[in-house]
Amino acid sequence: MSTPDLGLPMTVPAPGLPERVRIHEVGPRDGLQNEASTVPTEVKAEFIHRLADAGLTTVEATSFVHPKWVPQLADAEELFPRVRDLEGVRLPVLVPNSRGLERALALGAHRVAVFASATESFAKANLNRTVEESLAVFEPVVTRARDEGAHVRGYVSMCFGDPWEGAVPLHQVVHVCKALLEMGCDELSLGDTIGVATPGHVLGLLSALNEAGVPTDVVGVHFHDTYGQALANTLAALQHGVTTVDASAGGLGGCPYAKSATGNLATEDLVWMLQGLGIDTGVDLGRLVATSEWMAGRLGRPSPSRTLRALSHKEQ
Amino acid sequence: MSTPDLGLPMTVPAPGLPERVRIHEVGPRDGLQNEASTVPTEVKAEFIHRLADAGLTTVEATSFVHPKWVPQLADAEELFPRVRDLEGVRLPVLVPNSRGLERALALGAHRVAVFASATESFAKANLNRTVEESLAVFEPVVTRARDEGAHVRGYVSMCFGDPWEGAVPLHQVVHVCKALLEMGCDELSLGDTIGVATPGHVLGLLSALNEAGVPTDVVGVHFHDTYGQALANTLAALQHGVTTVDASAGGLGGCPYAKSATGNLATEDLVWMLQGLGIDTGVDLGRLVATSEWMAGRLGRPSPSRTLRALSHKEQ
Repeated sequence: MSTPDLGLPMTVPAPGLPERVRIHEVGPRDGLQNEASTVPTEVKAEFIHRLADAGLTTVEATSFVHPKWVPQLADAEELFPRVRDLEGVRLPVLVPNSRGLERALALGAHRVAVFASATESFAKANLNRTVEESLAVFEPVVTRARDEGAHVRGYVSMCFGDPWEGAVPLHQVVHVCKALLEMGCDELSLGDTIGVATPGHVLGLLSALNEAGVPTDVVGVHFHDTYGQALANTLAALQHGVTTVDASAGGLGGCPYAKSATGNLATEDLVWMLQGLGIDTGVDLGRLVATSEWMAGRLGRPSPSRTLRALSHKEQ
Repeated sequence: MSTPDLGLPMTVPAPGLPERVRIHEVGPRDGLQNEASTVPTEVKAEFIHRLADAGLTTVEATSFVHPKWVPQLADAEELFPRVRDLEGVRLPVLVPNSRGLERALALGAHRVAVFASATESFAKANLNRTVEESLAVFEPVVTRARDEGAHVRGYVSMCFGDPWEGAVPLHQVVHVCKALLEMGCDELSLGDTIGVATPGHVLGLLSALNEAGVPTDVVGVHFHDTYGQALANTLAALQHGVTTVDASAGGLGGCPYAKSATGNLATEDLVWMLQGLGIDTGVDLGRLVATSEWMAGRLGRPSPSRTLRALSHKEQ
């Protein structure tokens, strides 16, 4: 059989889905911070420029955590000025604490993100604090960011399962989400950090949040494809009314051939589905594929994105 | 971050889904016929026995096409007697024409499958006939099989896109489906042979079939993961009421690292989702993973199933 000839899916809308979805591209931050090799600053800058050219309107640019913890992103101070003037693109950056926030604000960042955990084990492992201690650290960060007119995203990790604790009770996730919103976060991103969620679990958490007074329009979803569930979970979230979906160009963020493969949902696979459903994203799939292929070349390894692979083969 | 510790997903049912799904396992036939290397007969027999032990109740065993066309399955006559007495397992075999049917019946096959195409291009490429000519060939096959008391499945390839023709009109697919049912097929399998479908397209075809008088309970779905859409499409089909889903253990059936990667939906990824949704399949995921790992070892290449990879890493 020959190689597929279709560069784009046939568009057939389905009932009950949003007209437009905002893709929150996390490749340059969540993707590259989990890659084994450190990418030169100029390559990162070009990556972000290319993603913007491909039509992505939100590109998480980098992280202002201490370079000791994430050496891959130690060049945040050099990188951010090279991309901050990109027009029409939101460029959030991760900030772990007040010091990171001040570094980001000093460089002119208008959008920041804090990252909380739904479980004690991951809070301890990732932040070296309890859940409550980490929330207490974020509170002045969020207040100060808002005082400076910055938009604040609150990541919540391990919403659907934890490698140490197993199942994560919904009320625990709801508690952390509400705390982040109450301290002033503008939006949330529900992370399935280890990729174990299934669609009913996604709907269950979204409903539990609604029942606790959290409206769906402040909620984004952040799925990892560790168990191949990311796109099915995304479909369920869209059916519930979610319109912000995190994804990583080329599926960057965890080598698919190594242990603990925890790659993000690939932006290409997401765009293929959304385009097929007639949901507007503004993304040009061909340009996105070209960008991710270029980046895969820089990293020296094939992308785990299936759509990318199918379309690259087609172009050869 | 450590490796996931969860051997099974948390179970959270979603509304509007079936209680039970029958997985039609195609690994030994659709999987192995597309592998580059030919597997010894005793390995195939052990594969089928292990799949049955893992709880799969329908395992498509082999194909009685001419050995010249599918040399990987040229041992159908040797293989089938080694598995036909497996208790509680349906063992359909593919038959291309009357001669293939007689070979299968002579060996005691109770379930056969014919394979039609929704497009002229693929009918020509795969069967060297027009769509109507191929249906005319199948008619006496189906009649004779039914007269012998055999159950007949009708595969329809290229239901959602064709590498030569691009988009495939729904009415064309509906026409072939109706013709197969009218000649006596007991069930259909709607194939997305090149993996381009998206969920709205799946729902659109299922609705078009219903409108043409084809009830959902005779329809199975057969998705390929070429563009990463297979599981999301499966979720859409389940929401429409489909209860028969084709999948291939370990995602056998197309090397993910080669051109034209057209692997089937991996049974492990499907079982993870169904188990998470609380949908009964009868499959023991741990045994299935062990079987697919064993088979990957025989084929000398890693499985593209993400769930398999996540759970294998866990067990190391």
